[in-house]
Amino acid sequence: MSYAVILGNLGNTCDRFLSTGYKEQPTKAEMVRQAASIAGVTGVELVGSWDITSANVAEMKRLLGDHGLRLASIIPDHFAHKRWGHGSFTSRDPAIRRAAVDETKAMMDAAVELGGDLLNLWPGQDGFDYPFQGDFLRQREWLVAGVAEAAAHRRDVRLSLEYKPKEPRTHCFLARAADTLLVALETGAANVGVTIDTGHALVGGENLAESSALLLKHGKLFHLHCNDNYRSWDDDMIVGTLHHTEFIELFVWLERLGYAGWYSMDQYPYREDARDAINESIRWIDGMRQRIATFGPQRFIDVIEEGDACRMARTMREFLGLGDASTLQGAAHG
Amino acid sequence: MSYAVILGNLGNTCDRFLSTGYKEQPTKAEMVRQAASIAGVTGVELVGSWDITSANVAEMKRLLGDHGLRLASIIPDHFAHKRWGHGSFTSRDPAIRRAAVDETKAMMDAAVELGGDLLNLWPGQDGFDYPFQGDFLRQREWLVAGVAEAAAHRRDVRLSLEYKPKEPRTHCFLARAADTLLVALETGAANVGVTIDTGHALVGGENLAESSALLLKHGKLFHLHCNDNYRSWDDDMIVGTLHHTEFIELFVWLERLGYAGWYSMDQYPYREDARDAINESIRWIDGMRQRIATFGPQRFIDVIEEGDACRMARTMREFLGLGDASTLQGAAHG
Amino acid sequence: MSYAVILGNLGNTCDRFLSTGYKEQPTKAEMVRQAASIAGVTGVELVGSWDITSANVAEMKRLLGDHGLRLASIIPDHFAHKRWGHGSFTSRDPAIRRAAVDETKAMMDAAVELGGDLLNLWPGQDGFDYPFQGDFLRQREWLVAGVAEAAAHRRDVRLSLEYKPKEPRTHCFLARAADTLLVALETGAANVGVTIDTGHALVGGENLAESSALLLKHGKLFHLHCNDNYRSWDDDMIVGTLHHTEFIELFVWLERLGYAGWYSMDQYPYREDARDAINESIRWIDGMRQRIATFGPQRFIDVIEEGDACRMARTMREFLGLGDASTLQGAAHG
Amino acid sequence: MSYAVILGNLGNTCDRFLSTGYKEQPTKAEMVRQAASIAGVTGVELVGSWDITSANVAEMKRLLGDHGLRLASIIPDHFAHKRWGHGSFTSRDPAIRRAAVDETKAMMDAAVELGGDLLNLWPGQDGFDYPFQGDFLRQREWLVAGVAEAAAHRRDVRLSLEYKPKEPRTHCFLARAADTLLVALETGAANVGVTIDTGHALVGGENLAESSALLLKHGKLFHLHCNDNYRSWDDDMIVGTLHHTEFIELFVWLERLGYAGWYSMDQYPYREDARDAINESIRWIDGMRQRIATFGPQRFIDVIEEGDACRMARTMREFLGLGDASTLQGAAHG
Repeated sequence: MSYAVILGNLGNTCDRFLSTGYKEQPTKAEMVRQAASIAGVTGVELVGSWDITSANVAEMKRLLGDHGLRLASIIPDHFAHKRWGHGSFTSRDPAIRRAAVDETKAMMDAAVELGGDLLNLWPGQDGFDYPFQGDFLRQREWLVAGVAEAAAHRRDVRLSLEYKPKEPRTHCFLARAADTLLVALETGAANVGVTIDTGHALVGGENLAESSALLLKHGKLFHLHCNDNYRSWDDDMIVGTLHHTEFIELFVWLERLGYAGWYSMDQYPYREDARDAINESIRWIDGMRQRIATFGPQRFIDVIEEGDACRMARTMREFLGLGDASTLQGAAHG
Repeated sequence: MSYAVILGNLGNTCDRFLSTGYKEQPTKAEMVRQAASIAGVTGVELVGSWDITSANVAEMKRLLGDHGLRLASIIPDHFAHKRWGHGSFTSRDPAIRRAAVDETKAMMDAAVELGGDLLNLWPGQDGFDYPFQGDFLRQREWLVAGVAEAAAHRRDVRLSLEYKPKEPRTHCFLARAADTLLVALETGAANVGVTIDTGHALVGGENLAESSALLLKHGKLFHLHCNDNYRSWDDDMIVGTLHHTEFIELFVWLERLGYAGWYSMDQYPYREDARDAINESIRWIDGMRQRIATFGPQRFIDVIEEGDACRMARTMREFLGLGDASTLQGAAHG
Repeated sequence: MSYAVILGNLGNTCDRFLSTGYKEQPTKAEMVRQAASIAGVTGVELVGSWDITSANVAEMKRLLGDHGLRLASIIPDHFAHKRWGHGSFTSRDPAIRRAAVDETKAMMDAAVELGGDLLNLWPGQDGFDYPFQGDFLRQREWLVAGVAEAAAHRRDVRLSLEYKPKEPRTHCFLARAADTLLVALETGAANVGVTIDTGHALVGGENLAESSALLLKHGKLFHLHCNDNYRSWDDDMIVGTLHHTEFIELFVWLERLGYAGWYSMDQYPYREDARDAINESIRWIDGMRQRIATFGPQRFIDVIEEGDACRMARTMREFLGLGDASTLQGAAHG
Repeated sequence: MSYAVILGNLGNTCDRFLSTGYKEQPTKAEMVRQAASIAGVTGVELVGSWDITSANVAEMKRLLGDHGLRLASIIPDHFAHKRWGHGSFTSRDPAIRRAAVDETKAMMDAAVELGGDLLNLWPGQDGFDYPFQGDFLRQREWLVAGVAEAAAHRRDVRLSLEYKPKEPRTHCFLARAADTLLVALETGAANVGVTIDTGHALVGGENLAESSALLLKHGKLFHLHCNDNYRSWDDDMIVGTLHHTEFIELFVWLERLGYAGWYSMDQYPYREDARDAINESIRWIDGMRQRIATFGPQRFIDVIEEGDACRMARTMREFLGLGDASTLQGAAHG
């Protein structure tokens, strides 16, 4: 029931047109301080290369400790150096594939040193852009083998595979919930699971709750990244500013099926005050979850069991306090 | 400030797989009775062929009168007969183009008899499916000429062009707000304007408020159709069940710029109780609009003038009563 | 290596605005005759209720025999009657779920009588439209159990699950290749597999070849439906008129991995001469496949193994005969 | 009838995850040399700040002259510095708006010095990300006023407005062909027109030929940027690798309506040899255009005038040499 933040979200953000970024880059210490200042935040996620390397583990451990923060996860760098440009676990170059596995193992060790037990793997460069560019059988085998090898390195660290339909490749190999679950199952490793990034799932045309139910049923929903978007691209926006019903549905199902992981913020507040933008997401999520508790999750579960859209609409209005009760009844208009 | 309903929304709905429809077809009288039973509804829109022909004007007039309903608009049939399959105003067959104009004129006369002053033109079959199928110059000229001729038939009836990016063609000629405004302006007729269907605008990737502002600035927003969807297809769903912020933004701008037309419901409640589904949309819209009035539209206008996303998020939380004020401040975290 | 046609594609087609359809409805005999007249067509798919019921098996057998056509598959009716409106295998009504399974078994028997061994299951109404409408755990269990029961009815008929992201529901339970493969695997039945409809896969953001490779690797690609679209909706258009490279890639992979099933046309030629539109798709597909054989599939496989986009572009130009060889070289510009 | 290249396309390319880029950065001289080495290229487009400033005009003039290249356009920097992060012409800060206009004027002068007469304006940061963030009336007025002032600076330089639905904002003010045409017309300046970027138009759901016809009819198609994508994002890929028919249709219409501007390449070959990737696009485009000339454009125009999809499919097969003539006839199957 704890909130976390990907540390880099508090830093400068760039895009392909403004590669030096929209803001100034704060220090690591300043970003950690800001994360800790957000009500409800108890953990951070660290990105390999950007935030954490084998060389600065002790320093980062002290920094987190000073602010009473736990390590939510490490996201190893499989995407932020030229060497990964044509893929990491699925590179056609065996030396790169080796490096991807080794980097994962090193970050598993670092995570344990930092008191954590979770790596979020996002092999974003592993995919293809053009037709005839994906070597589907070989590359999938490399992916499964690489993750399986890393998972065997130590069983006290869980590896959670984050899927995304596209970007930075036009097609990523780990594209959607079900295909990523298949990869996780194919590794045969109990410590390999899946991360839902709500924005990635929306881009993939998924219903957030359906994907979470599928993964939880298999015991494989290990982690959650939160952000909002317009459904066609990973805009990484403040949760709740565009969509509410599908997030509420997600929270009801997570609670119902006993999700016990983090609610971690993954945003790109290009032009916003970063701390403020992340704080807003947490206020929205926390506000919705507290309201669900007050309102009674069973009322939503009743709606789910019946499946009537009008009753859902009416229940959601009640939930948000929109409209008066006297006009609530619908079907009883005989 | 009045609500209306497209009458056929209360009837049976079909699709290409279930052409006999998901429900039973009620009588016209029953549909009118149901429309009148929804709190706030004072008008109906009638579809040519389906609801209204030159032959049943008197009967429909009596029916509406009996239930105290006004005619919000007539939507002439330019799409629901085989003859329109390759287009109406833009058919390559001059006899069909003639029929499209004549039908429009006949419905203008019918509207006046019914006490109305508005036609909603939706030439949905006017477009193309395949590359090399649109004859862009000629067909656009036919469209402008046909609408202009109809508009000249009588100036006491306004013609409002409803745009839609696709369906039933893969590309409709009147696809988006700006190109439809261009067509309206090209007719040179003061009584030709544009309808925003919120679902069509979402499919077109438009921001609802931006399109309404563009049209209102030109004095050309004549009409409004309301429904919600997942942004990729005209799902014609209950307003507010998927999106809220962009609808609230729309309502603030409509109020701000003095929109004086109808808020008319255009849904396809395939599997829902139709009256209930339409009632829900109106309850959502009315609930949001009343809340805006209570909350103070100026608070939203202040946000617009500043343009800060975090302040918007915070304001929207306050609007919905989500989260407590003590954690509201964001930027003041120095 | 044989081509087939869904018989109904040769008939009248309707949509929600023109429910009586864009054309006249030919007789069954006429449609069978037209199918047989298309060069390369050796099989037809029959849709339950529309084309085939337990009552007309003998008549249909004679009709196909007269024209030398084989039964490619039966597509049982799980979508074209009011009773399926809220789902078939996943209906909340146990009597409907029972009917869905029974109908499947009856059509398995009919298929065998007609000399076939394949059913294409498309439970298109099984899904949800609104948030809080899908009861994800229960409904998925019903789906798996229902298909498994039908599969056990007789093992000499294969059941191929056709996925589609949306329509007629905004979200179908069998939405994409990987989740449908998971369902097929969960049934534990060797005679349950998956159909790729190329248009559905494009709407789902899939690369056609990648999905086919995933399914073939699991021995589960049972069937193929062919059509083209604009990637956002199931437009059911003539193959090749919009996309070519991804189809060629698909054909190369199908050949490479030994796909031995039908290439069946599934189109909705609303406004076209139906036989002509289907003939065009087959001419395109056959033209591309023959060209691949002449060109040498190994040349494409070499491209796949290297993964270089420029070489792919160059190879595709050579394949289509566009541009002269003297300007072909790219990288050698030192 | 001449080909051009945006110079920066030949350099390093980055994205938000790999801000230092996927390749090494060549020198300006090397990039100019590479541009000149591509058969058919006679012009380059220079991006403000990146390639051209008021300070290096003479140097760039010499460099272009040495390689026999003309200036196709300057694209002033309205997007690549922190100061533009919240917009250029539509910034809420009047000093930034002033800077945007002044930068435009300076680049107009630079263009003339370099022997050019065209600026391609891409105010990519001018738009909004969140609801309630766009101040639609004021910002649109600022945009029109700013462009109009720049256009008045000197009438011997044309300003061509490049539209794009999204990125780097989730919504750009100049989003599609028709709304950008409206802005151009509102400036009242004959030297203000519109650029079609084929990829942006595809993302906007436009048919390329339809947009070009609309703009050419108004005498406002000033410029053309060429690239391909998957229709949902500006992937900036090699032309022809994904789509062919719509490009061929575009080229037929451009020829038919007398487009006399550049065919300029605008790609982001992140992981490809840049010169090779750009060369491929030009080979594809030139190959298609030459084939049209040989094939006879009138054959396509005949198809357009009739509007029959099957004839189009057949004609396109003939154009590509796919399939044999004996199976060409479709409708004549009496």
